[in-house]
Amino acid sequence: MPLTFQVLGQPEQDNALFVKVDTGQAQTRLLFDCGDGCPHQLGPSDLREVDHLCFSHLHMDHIAGFDLFFRLNFDRTTKENRIWVPHGSVEVIQHRFRGFMWNLVDEKQEGEWFVSEIGPNTVREGRFLAKEGFRTAHTVPERPRQGRTVIEGEGFTVEAMLLDHGTPSVGYLVREMDRVNVDTEKLAAKGLKPGPWVKRLRGPSAAPGETVEIDGVSHSLVALQTELLVTTPGDSIAYLTDFRMTPTTADALVSWLRGVNTVVCESQYRAADSDLAEPVMHSTTEEVTLMASRAGIGRLILFHFSGRYDAIARREMLADARAVFANTTFPDGWV
Amino acid sequence: MPLTFQVLGQPEQDNALFVKVDTGQAQTRLLFDCGDGCPHQLGPSDLREVDHLCFSHLHMDHIAGFDLFFRLNFDRTTKENRIWVPHGSVEVIQHRFRGFMWNLVDEKQEGEWFVSEIGPNTVREGRFLAKEGFRTAHTVPERPRQGRTVIEGEGFTVEAMLLDHGTPSVGYLVREMDRVNVDTEKLAAKGLKPGPWVKRLRGPSAAPGETVEIDGVSHSLVALQTELLVTTPGDSIAYLTDFRMTPTTADALVSWLRGVNTVVCESQYRAADSDLAEPVMHSTTEEVTLMASRAGIGRLILFHFSGRYDAIARREMLADARAVFANTTFPDGWV
Repeated sequence: MPLTFQVLGQPEQDNALFVKVDTGQAQTRLLFDCGDGCPHQLGPSDLREVDHLCFSHLHMDHIAGFDLFFRLNFDRTTKENRIWVPHGSVEVIQHRFRGFMWNLVDEKQEGEWFVSEIGPNTVREGRFLAKEGFRTAHTVPERPRQGRTVIEGEGFTVEAMLLDHGTPSVGYLVREMDRVNVDTEKLAAKGLKPGPWVKRLRGPSAAPGETVEIDGVSHSLVALQTELLVTTPGDSIAYLTDFRMTPTTADALVSWLRGVNTVVCESQYRAADSDLAEPVMHSTTEEVTLMASRAGIGRLILFHFSGRYDAIARREMLADARAVFANTTFPDGWV
Repeated sequence: MPLTFQVLGQPEQDNALFVKVDTGQAQTRLLFDCGDGCPHQLGPSDLREVDHLCFSHLHMDHIAGFDLFFRLNFDRTTKENRIWVPHGSVEVIQHRFRGFMWNLVDEKQEGEWFVSEIGPNTVREGRFLAKEGFRTAHTVPERPRQGRTVIEGEGFTVEAMLLDHGTPSVGYLVREMDRVNVDTEKLAAKGLKPGPWVKRLRGPSAAPGETVEIDGVSHSLVALQTELLVTTPGDSIAYLTDFRMTPTTADALVSWLRGVNTVVCESQYRAADSDLAEPVMHSTTEEVTLMASRAGIGRLILFHFSGRYDAIARREMLADARAVFANTTFPDGWV
């Protein structure tokens, strides 16, 4: 199944992105940022199932909805509780954890949280316990980052890139793994009965000469895999917000995002207002669409516009954007 | 003018109370607690004008809406920024202040906050500065509490009483000062022209023999004050939530709240569920109404019901309450 997603929040208010990965066997829910009112747009059942809360950075408009997420999950034991932030931000999350009176917790209180700081070359993790009222940051030895990947989930990965917003801001990219399915029509046409051997067929690529026995007949596994397996490329979605699109950043994004299906990207300012974008470390519609065009992405969804623009101005920005990169839209439901 | 107020939140969600004091010369806005979604019910203009944010205590359902209040006001210089909490809670507020990435603040950043801890005998104040990213708690020497009064405002006072919720919970009582007005009809009937002397008339009680000259004629000020001044007792409203109504607490509330016009009080459990109320340190409808009846208050507004009760159960609780204290209601708009 392709990824499903929802841009949360309103045009002149805080925003966030909710992404659901569904492999058929497992569902994973990812929440990117947590602005005021954003988690409220999800039902409690989705919020209670969020596997990873991934922050771009911790300015007010990206974290002001955190309390609702946290109160629903602080003692959760059904899943690991994982938060991702840019390097230098774990303390802010600890302050968040401690922003309640924890007089009721005792040794039996459940709830364990992992907060991972994404740095240029490493991931550094802190562990926090509800039973301690989150007082102690238990540090875990930092680990080097393997390429861009920070999360290896069931059927997907999340990659991260550090962007510059005065403070580091993390751009995220969710990549579904390619899906390999058996072409059941071809299977039937060949008169082969499905059986336990199909599991091996779908498994790792066969070694030359490897065979599999079906109804007492030996078959070349390489041949069967070539003939019967259909590979569907995985879906992909990127979340980029609050950063200055310098030429170097644009180049890095172009190579990272090449061929990505969907990019949800900030568009705080129109091109004519680039003198406003620069000092506050935001990007313009023009910068974003030029990058999208060079990267050859599938579609661009613009969000997180400056409050200085009304609906009319935003529609003009969308028209400007489409002149550069045709497949540009607002999030569903935005006008 | 009587006090105006609004119970915020919904029956099965977080609650708060907004009170406006209007002397004709000055308006003061008081917000009691700040649960999720509660400040959102006020417009930004009211939120930006809140003079005192008074917390009962800092459990999640009383502070989860704090971010919206704070982001609108963190750099406010048009008024003092004042927060009141029970003793032992200032740290939690500091964690709240620090729950954002403050990379953008520098020496010129405005915003100064006073957080006052209400203890049994003293008020201890901490001062926090936005330009420091709220890192340092600047302490101010603690001062003894003068009776129950913690705030002396323009035309009103706020009194406080420490209640027991496992953690201390502050009950608050806003008392408008008596209003003294000139009876303009009597003034006209006596043929006296209003002039600068009216200011003296409305001022402190005259000394025996003190006179005032009106149109060249000397009048006894004592006689004029007796004849022309009308005193209207000030309005009053109490906010009590999250506490166990022990007999000692009930007795203390009865004497404190005697004759108060409006009491907004928690009613987490029905009488039949007192075994549930006890361990979680909440009160029952019966306990609250008996206290109200003994105190001879004007009206009782029940709120903050346990989520275990649906609308039908809540209406039964209201009927139970009215059998003990007739002038009991839900907040406006609740069913």
